[in-house]
Amino acid sequence: MINEKYKAMLGGKSIIRELSEYATARGNEIGYENVFDYSLGNPSVPCTKGYTDAVISLHQEMNPMALHGYSPSTTIPSVRQAVAESLNRRFGMDYSMEHIFMTTGAAGALAHALRAVTQPGDVVLTFAPFFPEYTPYVEGTQANLRVVPANVEDFQINFSAFEKMLDENVMAVLINTPNNPSGIVYSEETIKKLAEVLERKQKEYGHDIFLISDEPYREILFDGRKAPYPSKYYSNTLSCYSFSKSLSLPGERIGYVAVNPKAVDADILVAMMAQISRGTGHNCPSSSIQLAVAEVLDETSDLSVYETNMNLLYDALVELGFEVVRPGGTFYIFPKALEADANAFCMKAKKYDLILVPSDNFGVTGYFRMAYCIDTEKVKRSIPVLKKFVETEYPNR
Amino acid sequence: MINEKYKAMLGGKSIIRELSEYATARGNEIGYENVFDYSLGNPSVPCTKGYTDAVISLHQEMNPMALHGYSPSTTIPSVRQAVAESLNRRFGMDYSMEHIFMTTGAAGALAHALRAVTQPGDVVLTFAPFFPEYTPYVEGTQANLRVVPANVEDFQINFSAFEKMLDENVMAVLINTPNNPSGIVYSEETIKKLAEVLERKQKEYGHDIFLISDEPYREILFDGRKAPYPSKYYSNTLSCYSFSKSLSLPGERIGYVAVNPKAVDADILVAMMAQISRGTGHNCPSSSIQLAVAEVLDETSDLSVYETNMNLLYDALVELGFEVVRPGGTFYIFPKALEADANAFCMKAKKYDLILVPSDNFGVTGYFRMAYCIDTEKVKRSIPVLKKFVETEYPNR
Repeated sequence: MINEKYKAMLGGKSIIRELSEYATARGNEIGYENVFDYSLGNPSVPCTKGYTDAVISLHQEMNPMALHGYSPSTTIPSVRQAVAESLNRRFGMDYSMEHIFMTTGAAGALAHALRAVTQPGDVVLTFAPFFPEYTPYVEGTQANLRVVPANVEDFQINFSAFEKMLDENVMAVLINTPNNPSGIVYSEETIKKLAEVLERKQKEYGHDIFLISDEPYREILFDGRKAPYPSKYYSNTLSCYSFSKSLSLPGERIGYVAVNPKAVDADILVAMMAQISRGTGHNCPSSSIQLAVAEVLDETSDLSVYETNMNLLYDALVELGFEVVRPGGTFYIFPKALEADANAFCMKAKKYDLILVPSDNFGVTGYFRMAYCIDTEKVKRSIPVLKKFVETEYPNR
Repeated sequence: MINEKYKAMLGGKSIIRELSEYATARGNEIGYENVFDYSLGNPSVPCTKGYTDAVISLHQEMNPMALHGYSPSTTIPSVRQAVAESLNRRFGMDYSMEHIFMTTGAAGALAHALRAVTQPGDVVLTFAPFFPEYTPYVEGTQANLRVVPANVEDFQINFSAFEKMLDENVMAVLINTPNNPSGIVYSEETIKKLAEVLERKQKEYGHDIFLISDEPYREILFDGRKAPYPSKYYSNTLSCYSFSKSLSLPGERIGYVAVNPKAVDADILVAMMAQISRGTGHNCPSSSIQLAVAEVLDETSDLSVYETNMNLLYDALVELGFEVVRPGGTFYIFPKALEADANAFCMKAKKYDLILVPSDNFGVTGYFRMAYCIDTEKVKRSIPVLKKFVETEYPNR
């Protein structure tokens, strides 16, 4: 008989996907250029020429049996080595090859990191607002996800709530900075305080607490900002990365886990991840794509459009009177809705062909997310529409 | 704390991998050309020019945002459509797009198929000799794998043992034809009888029993043979495929599940697989590789070397007095060892730099596997060595 759990999941459609499908359907009616679709976090700039050239030359020049051969179960050594060196160069870390495990994007990275450092029944904490897919990612490991309420002041960590929830059943803490959906970047002060709390609680409870740091937006930073690299501040850190956003390769499913060399059992965690793969059918990302990204590790697509769009939207939102925290990176912004019910707010916006995502699924009520990975021209055209929407629907604010 | 289960798995190294590592190390000592390495099932012929050209032209000509964009959660529609049409053309099936789910190779396909049609605690039956990775594949789903003893006569199905083990807790039966490690192909008679038993037991127990058919060797057939397509004979069939062997792309991790259109819940199984992906971190195979294989679905690499090698080895083994069933396909042969303890037999062979894999891990004692996906020239050179080994170690047979 078919599996009841997965059958039941068919009912619960993602609100983001539903809105995105609505936007596409509406676009078929009135022309997609007339739909201000802020629903999906899909990169809007092409991958680098370096990546394309690397793929082509690998296929033209490399022995096809080597290019397309099985990866070792711990993934391709030369690629792991190149990733380690790139991270050491960029973040002053001390990784070697054995700390790197290549994965099918950040989803694959989180699947391995979570399984490696939790047992069924353990608790994993994350912080609102959070990426809704964390729920199936964590539940898929048989651990339980609990969500620390947001600090809506600035979307840094709500430490008083965190300390209350960080009981002895918590074996891992999952952070995402730069953050989807808020766009904020954890400050060095936040990361240091987080590390201090975790160190203290590890001692108090007599067991390790791993920090799982989900970092697909690491390279999309605004205002000349540098983001602190969380693993530098806390030894028991597994950094989970995807090239989806930095190289605009979301469909290629390529990323990695980087195990802090000072983490407990750092010498065996990657070998364990290779074992985890056997049970999930992961079995290494594509060999040719591992080899291609290894040649362009320090490149990024031209990410400047996201900052241009953020500035336009942020200024417009502030001018219209929205409460909004200025994003430090990503391609998201997370303003407060103009009524308590964010769903009602976003439903009203839909009438103006403004596709906004209500915040409830991100673990906060009363906000909405705009994914501004769209053409700047469209962002500009959307601003008068946003103004009209606000002035018409909320005339007495 | 790190996960105890995966840590414990670190001890249990695959005998195949151990032997392969030994062969590599020994090759470093005496030259790899002098090691007759029959350990690993790694294709020894290059992928097709068609595949390479498809990858290059996709990267030269297609919009990179479309080429590298997220796949829909049920994978790329045009690719699913092309796979359905290819299977319909080749096997007289009636698939449409919604029955096809693209996966990261056969491992990914089995991970989804098994999860879709079992609940934790269910029993999955397979037949010895079997691919040892079926154990972690099935255990990863929380179902239990039980192995029906081999029919050593011809390595078709041992039906009397099968019927005894097919109790009401069995929710899925996992077959692999052409078979790793025996190289045999299930006859039409075997498949028909299997279907008849399953139909009868479904009625008797009042629940569905799914057939999961693992078919990565489907295109490697000898003696002009055609293999029956199992799904044609039994409605509740999920066919799991990989392009690893037919196109020599094992490292690219690309394959699919094809759900028989007449299967129970055929209309929702693929959507369920998309849900399963969320919990395992699978999230679709690489987009560019999905698109590339879709252009060469009816191609294969030049697979004739495997038949050449099989003939050389089969004749030599028969002449040396081995009991051996003639393979109908794959690149494996599975002779009876010359003593009851296959491990001892293979250890003795190692002294002659003949790397043979003992059968115990495949669920049968007293046999050994040779993976003859190596150069024909090397197969030829190995035959006098095999002769010397047999005559020296087993002089009084």
